[in-house]
Amino acid sequence: MSNKFNTDLDRCRANYQPLTPLRFLDRAMDVYPNRVAAIHRGKSYTWREYGERCRRLGRALIGAGVQRGDTVAIMATNVLAMLEAQFGVPYSGAVINCINSRLDAAAVAFILEHSEAKIFFVDRQLADVAREAIAQSGRDMMVIDISEPEAGSAAPVGKIEYEDFLATAKASVELRYPEDEWDAIALNYTSGTTGNPKGVVYHHRGAYLNALGQVMTGDMVGRKTVYLWTLPLFHCNGWCYAWGLAAIGATSVCLRKVAAEEIYAAIAAYGVTHFCAAPTVLSFLIAGKPANWVAPKHPIEIICAGASPPVAVMQQTIELGFKVLHVYGMTELHGVVTLCEEQEEWGGLDLPTRCQRYGRQGVRTVVTDEMMVADPATYQPIPADGETMGEVLFRGNLGMKGYLKNPKATKDAFAGDWYHSGDLAVLHPDGYMEIKDRAKDIIISGGENVSSLEVEDVLYTHPDVLNVAVVAVPDAKWGEVPCAVVELKPDRVGSLTEEQVIAYCRQRLAGFKTPRHVIFEPIVRTATGKLQKFKLRDHVAQVIANKAKAA
Amino acid sequence: MSNKFNTDLDRCRANYQPLTPLRFLDRAMDVYPNRVAAIHRGKSYTWREYGERCRRLGRALIGAGVQRGDTVAIMATNVLAMLEAQFGVPYSGAVINCINSRLDAAAVAFILEHSEAKIFFVDRQLADVAREAIAQSGRDMMVIDISEPEAGSAAPVGKIEYEDFLATAKASVELRYPEDEWDAIALNYTSGTTGNPKGVVYHHRGAYLNALGQVMTGDMVGRKTVYLWTLPLFHCNGWCYAWGLAAIGATSVCLRKVAAEEIYAAIAAYGVTHFCAAPTVLSFLIAGKPANWVAPKHPIEIICAGASPPVAVMQQTIELGFKVLHVYGMTELHGVVTLCEEQEEWGGLDLPTRCQRYGRQGVRTVVTDEMMVADPATYQPIPADGETMGEVLFRGNLGMKGYLKNPKATKDAFAGDWYHSGDLAVLHPDGYMEIKDRAKDIIISGGENVSSLEVEDVLYTHPDVLNVAVVAVPDAKWGEVPCAVVELKPDRVGSLTEEQVIAYCRQRLAGFKTPRHVIFEPIVRTATGKLQKFKLRDHVAQVIANKAKAA
Repeated sequence: MSNKFNTDLDRCRANYQPLTPLRFLDRAMDVYPNRVAAIHRGKSYTWREYGERCRRLGRALIGAGVQRGDTVAIMATNVLAMLEAQFGVPYSGAVINCINSRLDAAAVAFILEHSEAKIFFVDRQLADVAREAIAQSGRDMMVIDISEPEAGSAAPVGKIEYEDFLATAKASVELRYPEDEWDAIALNYTSGTTGNPKGVVYHHRGAYLNALGQVMTGDMVGRKTVYLWTLPLFHCNGWCYAWGLAAIGATSVCLRKVAAEEIYAAIAAYGVTHFCAAPTVLSFLIAGKPANWVAPKHPIEIICAGASPPVAVMQQTIELGFKVLHVYGMTELHGVVTLCEEQEEWGGLDLPTRCQRYGRQGVRTVVTDEMMVADPATYQPIPADGETMGEVLFRGNLGMKGYLKNPKATKDAFAGDWYHSGDLAVLHPDGYMEIKDRAKDIIISGGENVSSLEVEDVLYTHPDVLNVAVVAVPDAKWGEVPCAVVELKPDRVGSLTEEQVIAYCRQRLAGFKTPRHVIFEPIVRTATGKLQKFKLRDHVAQVIANKAKAA
Repeated sequence: MSNKFNTDLDRCRANYQPLTPLRFLDRAMDVYPNRVAAIHRGKSYTWREYGERCRRLGRALIGAGVQRGDTVAIMATNVLAMLEAQFGVPYSGAVINCINSRLDAAAVAFILEHSEAKIFFVDRQLADVAREAIAQSGRDMMVIDISEPEAGSAAPVGKIEYEDFLATAKASVELRYPEDEWDAIALNYTSGTTGNPKGVVYHHRGAYLNALGQVMTGDMVGRKTVYLWTLPLFHCNGWCYAWGLAAIGATSVCLRKVAAEEIYAAIAAYGVTHFCAAPTVLSFLIAGKPANWVAPKHPIEIICAGASPPVAVMQQTIELGFKVLHVYGMTELHGVVTLCEEQEEWGGLDLPTRCQRYGRQGVRTVVTDEMMVADPATYQPIPADGETMGEVLFRGNLGMKGYLKNPKATKDAFAGDWYHSGDLAVLHPDGYMEIKDRAKDIIISGGENVSSLEVEDVLYTHPDVLNVAVVAVPDAKWGEVPCAVVELKPDRVGSLTEEQVIAYCRQRLAGFKTPRHVIFEPIVRTATGKLQKFKLRDHVAQVIANKAKAA
């Protein structure tokens, strides 16, 4: 509608510029020139130095013939080059594709082909897989090796070293800023619970907004933040932290290997204030506490995603001197979109009760826009009763552009103009969301929904249990019944029977939620640490069918 | 250029939504329902309550016939209704025009006419001016009175009270979110150093971004922020803090009257952590320190804009237990765009030297995008030598939409695709910008630039001086020479001669910068506290011509 407020009041370059995280680095170079941007292998790089290196990378890529809209792939641990690529590749106008370092050659080959990678940076530690993947892909691409003494002795894959490649940059080359904030900045392949991985395309706008959102959510603004890179940069570009830390001039501590010893060493050496962790890392931290550990005055913040850590683990972590912020998100939404924001009134609760609250996925972040837990068929929000389950839906500026070369999957993901997370959750009366299960992993037994996560949570409380997975198996009477796959602690193998496990659950769960079958065996996870329940279901069904036949 | 990353990867409602600060309030209502959003007249309102009141205001306005693109004016002190209007008016789809409460009736009448105001909210404290302005404007508009015991006994201007108006809201009315983030959200008239005021139009995008930028800049994120409303909400919608505080769920303390006593009382009563202040307010704070004042453990942050406060004032303020963050901006850029970000290495400087640094206008904020100090004719950046002056130019998402119904002025302001601040500054070798003068106030004497601010700074160091203004007067030999208008402290009137003032300056300034004339008289400022040097120049030229004639 035309009115006086949109007449002769148009956009121009002075009042409208594409939002892009590249501006954060430009500013950090000017505003924090002498502050440490990154520490790698004991060496510090100021924001000026780090920024110059990122720009050299951008210029070298342009010099190597990279065009806007090309894909530049990188498979690396969290070394300096990996951190630099997050800015360097976008500076060239190309799209960065960070490849999961735990994938096998076939999966990497698929990604290189599907993304049409032009240039491929390879950490020498991953050289063998990369070499095999390139061969399988049959693609002709420029390969740049990232070699460091700690990267092992595998033969190089390419013909040029990362530092030599940086040196090819011509200072006169103009950096390429996005022409539109909807331009792609990154490509991240999901592990895919069925079929081939899907390539999630990030836009500069979403990257900019979530970078700001992440540093605000993580309580990093206005203080001297030292961020330790435990979170792989190939996960949603380190949940946009690679970009967000530039917005506040924080210090990154690179980390090739994630282990308790390395984490504690970095805390001691560099005064780490923040890091991200999957719940399993918390257990490592507790077990690996150094003998001379003293809880820091200001608790170190752990931003924890994935399933909620067990209450006991959360509590021990806090008692060690950490603060745990539980967050939730997914590749398709530029990373994190909800957090368990602590309410003042929780201060009055005892620690175990608080830890239960801390494990909820919570509420939307400041840049998430809209979130709804609803019936995905009717889009009717579920009541906040802590019982009714609905699918978690999102709508806002953190939605991906879509899946690369896959309009069908994109359309499905955005059905009804909401992003469908595929996760089922309840809303507690205080409005906090708690994930109960993946939609496709829910078990329907006698018409009742059984959350596999809820049953797993109970099993994790058993002191002999190391790892569990609960899936549905077909049942003549009930349609489906829960089956628990249980991996016992190494020194407890053989200590429990199927009956004992079932009895343990029956005491703690409603009858229809209690597993009918228990299988003792190691739990197999994907390269990203995810459980592929669709595979486990087939396997379990087979095992049980065989057992029935044998009986 | 078409490529795989912009094919079948379009915007939809799930991945693209207009940026708007309204989303911050929506979220604050859900995430901080029980946290205090505002305190007014001793009464607290939670985010849920405050948000509901804002929404009622939006619905009442729609019920009263407000359309998208209409102007809703408000002239009020920093009372709750004024704070609510910042969200309530945009919720109705209308544009909020906060009118400077210090303007006279003629100026207000001009604004009401020019903005085509449909509805006018009037603080009873300002009823007489408003009544006269409405009469002068000849406009027929709905007037809503904001009456409170402290607002005085002037007769109401309209036919309905604010609270009664809120009560007209129908819950079924749908709130209006912007259809595009480029839609206008606010209209702010500049005081105008020449001619009529100009109406600066804000967009939802800029409001959203600067709201985030402001809370990040002000060190308000991740802590319990209690913000005292000393800064008039009619200044750039309280520099976007009205919106930004919702993004972090901070508490606003309303304030009808800005005086040291009120500020100290609010600090004591509500644990204020932040407020904004013109440099003059710092002097009030020092003078008005209560007898039982104890410096707070965590320094209270004062965000200070305008000319740099004198070093002595800055130092005393810090010693009182405050932290002073100097910022710089203007109405045309959604408020603040630079800040004096403290560098770690300043920690080693003594307090007076640090205070000198603190007074610089500094560097761009995280959302400012591009800033340049340059020759406005050639757009060549000036060297960072602390000497060369250039105009301060900005380009980015904080630029206004433009001036309402004034395409010529808009075009001039954005000449060369940069926003022209009209301020002259030097860049220090560390890249920090320091404003030296308004472009039109610079004095050119014998071909040399003389910064009137620099001369004023020297005069302010004289213990007898209360207020000064330095302007150019025509000179047969030098073209222009500096003339100082000096207002002595009430108990020092008559204590200084023209010769003594000139001698004082000559000891401290280069010869060509030393005033040739001194006039002793009170300094007159505009309703916004600004010096209109173009008026002063005419007046001074007249005084000196008369003196010459008389001699």
